[in-house]
Amino acid sequence: MSFNPDRINDQCKLASQAWPSLANQSALSRRQALEAMATSLWDRRSEVLSANQRDVKAGQDKGLSVALIDRLSLDDARISGIVASIRQIASLRDPLGEVMSGWVCENGLKINKVRVPLGVIAIIYEARPNVTADAIALCVKTGNAVVLRGSASAYQSNFAITTILKSAMQATGLPQDSVQLLEDTTHEGVWHLVSLRQYINIAIPRGGASLIQNVITHAKVPTIETGVGNCHIFVDDSANLDQALAIIRNAKAQRPSVCNACETVLVHQAIAKVFLPKLAQAMAEEKVEIRGCDQTCAIIQATPATETDWENEFLDLILAVKVVADTTAAIAHIRQYGTQHSESILSNSRANISDFTTQIDAAAVLVNASTRFVDGGEFGFGAELGISTQKLHARGPMGLPELTTYKYIVEGDGHIRA
Amino acid sequence: MSFNPDRINDQCKLASQAWPSLANQSALSRRQALEAMATSLWDRRSEVLSANQRDVKAGQDKGLSVALIDRLSLDDARISGIVASIRQIASLRDPLGEVMSGWVCENGLKINKVRVPLGVIAIIYEARPNVTADAIALCVKTGNAVVLRGSASAYQSNFAITTILKSAMQATGLPQDSVQLLEDTTHEGVWHLVSLRQYINIAIPRGGASLIQNVITHAKVPTIETGVGNCHIFVDDSANLDQALAIIRNAKAQRPSVCNACETVLVHQAIAKVFLPKLAQAMAEEKVEIRGCDQTCAIIQATPATETDWENEFLDLILAVKVVADTTAAIAHIRQYGTQHSESILSNSRANISDFTTQIDAAAVLVNASTRFVDGGEFGFGAELGISTQKLHARGPMGLPELTTYKYIVEGDGHIRA
Repeated sequence: MSFNPDRINDQCKLASQAWPSLANQSALSRRQALEAMATSLWDRRSEVLSANQRDVKAGQDKGLSVALIDRLSLDDARISGIVASIRQIASLRDPLGEVMSGWVCENGLKINKVRVPLGVIAIIYEARPNVTADAIALCVKTGNAVVLRGSASAYQSNFAITTILKSAMQATGLPQDSVQLLEDTTHEGVWHLVSLRQYINIAIPRGGASLIQNVITHAKVPTIETGVGNCHIFVDDSANLDQALAIIRNAKAQRPSVCNACETVLVHQAIAKVFLPKLAQAMAEEKVEIRGCDQTCAIIQATPATETDWENEFLDLILAVKVVADTTAAIAHIRQYGTQHSESILSNSRANISDFTTQIDAAAVLVNASTRFVDGGEFGFGAELGISTQKLHARGPMGLPELTTYKYIVEGDGHIRA
Repeated sequence: MSFNPDRINDQCKLASQAWPSLANQSALSRRQALEAMATSLWDRRSEVLSANQRDVKAGQDKGLSVALIDRLSLDDARISGIVASIRQIASLRDPLGEVMSGWVCENGLKINKVRVPLGVIAIIYEARPNVTADAIALCVKTGNAVVLRGSASAYQSNFAITTILKSAMQATGLPQDSVQLLEDTTHEGVWHLVSLRQYINIAIPRGGASLIQNVITHAKVPTIETGVGNCHIFVDDSANLDQALAIIRNAKAQRPSVCNACETVLVHQAIAKVFLPKLAQAMAEEKVEIRGCDQTCAIIQATPATETDWENEFLDLILAVKVVADTTAAIAHIRQYGTQHSESILSNSRANISDFTTQIDAAAVLVNASTRFVDGGEFGFGAELGISTQKLHARGPMGLPELTTYKYIVEGDGHIRA
C-alpha cells in the first residue's frame, strides 16, 4: 500500500477524541473490560489463527527467515500466553487517581499531586503479534488511548486481534475508538505518525536498535528510548570467585539474545591468573566464545578482541573479556563503552562497591547479582513495557506508573495571590 | 560571529567530561560552592556592571526597544536579587541521594530507587542575564553540568557572570568546566546544540513561545516544553460571586504578562445577567478590555470576540468572556482552546467541581482560587524553573527534583536468575 497521511491523521484524531471518555472510566470498568477482552480473544482465537496463517504464508512467499516466521507465528499455546498476559495486567493495582503527594500551603491552599493517564500513546513495533494485545491491555489499564503501528508482515494477525479486543471493549462500555491499528504500514507513515504533536502525547518504539534510533531521530513528539544493553560485569579482586562464575554463566548464557544479558566481563588484574582459566572452562561448557584483551589472551586461549567487541551488543554466545587495573579502570571502561542499561560489580570491598554504585551512570547498578535481574517482572512490577535507557520520565524497567503523568489539583476558598 | 559547530562540540564535550566529577560532590560541597559563588558575584559586581554597560550600549546602538533594554540592564539592586536567588537555591534541601522507594524481592534481592542528576542540561534563553546565574546555581545544586546558550545581545554580561561563578566554583573544588557558556550565539548554533545526543541529556528552552517551539521542533535530544498558558476561569452558577470577582481581578490584572494569568472567563448562563455587569465594572476599574461572545455582548458593552481571541494568550489587559450552558460546555471549550497549563472552576457544587477536576487535562486544575497560584514559589518548591506544559517527566511548576532522574541499585549475594 502507499503512504496515506490523511488516513493516519484520521485514525490519530479518532484516538485523541475518544481518549477523554476512556480516561474517565472507573478502575472497575477498565478491569472488567480487560477480563472480557481476554475471554473474547480466547473464544475467538480461530479468527486470529486463520489471519495469522495468511501472514505466515505471505511471509514464507516473501522469503522471510525461519527466525522471523517463528516470531510471527501463533498457535493455541501462544494465544493462551497472550490471554494470560491480559489477565495479569487486569489484576494489577490500578495506577490512576493515586495521590502521589499532597500538602497544605501556609495560606490554606490544599494541593494534591494526582496520577493521571498520559493521553494518546503511539507504539511502533516489529513483527510479534503478542505486542499488539499487550500494548492495548497496558493502555486500557492506564487509561491511555493507543495508536499501534505494527509491521506489514503481521498486519492480518494484528488486525484480527485488534478487532476482537475493540469489540469486547465496546461491549463493556469502553470507547473502542481509543484503540487504533494504523492501516498505513509504510516507512513514511512512521515518520508522519511521530510528527503529529496535535494528537500524540508520546511515542514508544519497541524492537531492534535500528527501529528505535529511527523513531527517536525522526520524532517531533516526546519518545521513550528502550532496549540497547551493552552490559558489563566487573569481577573485583575481593569477589567470591565461585559466585562470580555462576553469575557470569547466568548473565551471559541463560538467554543471550536479550538486552540485560552480559556482553563484557572486566577482571581485576590481581585475580586474572586464577580466575580467567576457570572462566574459560565455564564459558566453554556454555559454548560461549571469548574475545579477550592482550592480557587475557596471554593467560587463556581466546580470540583477540577488537574495538568493535567492546562497543557492540553481541546478543549471542560471545563474551568480551578485559583485564583492568582496579575499580577506577573498570568504571572508566564502562563509562566509555556502556549504554547506561545495567552494570554489575562482584566484590566484597565496601569501598569499591560504593565507588561503583555511586559513579556508574546507568539505569541499574547491581552488586553481586546477575544483570539478568533488571526486568519489570523480576523487580515485581507485574507488567514489562521494556527497559528505558534514557533519563527523562522513565529509567530502567517500566511498569504501569511509567505510562502515566500527574496533575496538581489546587483547592482554595476564594484565594487570591498577594 | 559565524556558526562554528566544532567549537560548540568542544564546549559540550568539556561539560560532559566534567560532569561525573560534579555529580560525585557531596551536598555540603555543592552548598558551600553556591554560597561562595553568591559572595563572589556580589564582590565582583563592578565587572558585571561594566560588561552590562557594553551590552546595553550595543543594544541601544542597534535600536533595541526600551522594554528589551530594560530586561537587559543590570544595577546593584538587580545583582543583589541575583545573589539572593543563588543563596536561596543553596539553602534548599539537597535532592540527590534520596531513596525514592526501596524493597526486598522474594529472592532476597534488595532494590533501592535513588535520585541522581540528569547529566548535561542545555538551557536556551533570551536576553535576561539573571537567567544565567539562576541556571548555573540550579544545575550546581542538582549535580548537573550545564551548557548555556544566551542571546548575543547579553553576551558580555553573561560572560562576566559565568566567569565569576566558574572561578568561585573552581576555588571551592568544583569542576568549573561543568559550566559552559556557548561562544556561538548564531541560530544555526542552537539547532546544532540540541542535536548533540552524545553530550546533552536534556534541553530546556526558557523564553517566549516562538523560541520554545523552535527548540522543540528542531531538537534531537529530549526537551521540556514550558510556558504557554491560555488559562481559563469558569464561573459556575453556584459560585460565590464576590469571590469570583476578586479572583478574576487577581488572575487577570495583578500581572497580565505571565503565563498563569487568566485569558478567558467562562460564565454559566444562569448567572450571566447578574454577574456580567459586575464583571464589566470590575474590569473597567482595572482598565481591562472585554472581548465577548454574542450572549455577553447582548448583556454588557464589549468588543465582539473573534476565533483568535479564544485561541491566543493576550498577556495583556484584555479578557475574553463567553457564556456557556453548563460545566460540560465549559470543559468542552477548555478542551478545544486550552494549553493544558492552569484551569480554574469557581463553584460550590460538589458534582461540578468533581467533573471539572477529573475531566480537565491540564498541569494544574484549581477550585475557587486564582490561576496565579500555579508557580513554584507559591507551591513551596523554593526554586522556579518554569512551568512545564508537557506530560513527560515534569508537569506544572518545576522544582529541583524535576532536574533529576533516578537509578536502581540492586544488591544481591551471588544471585542468579532462575
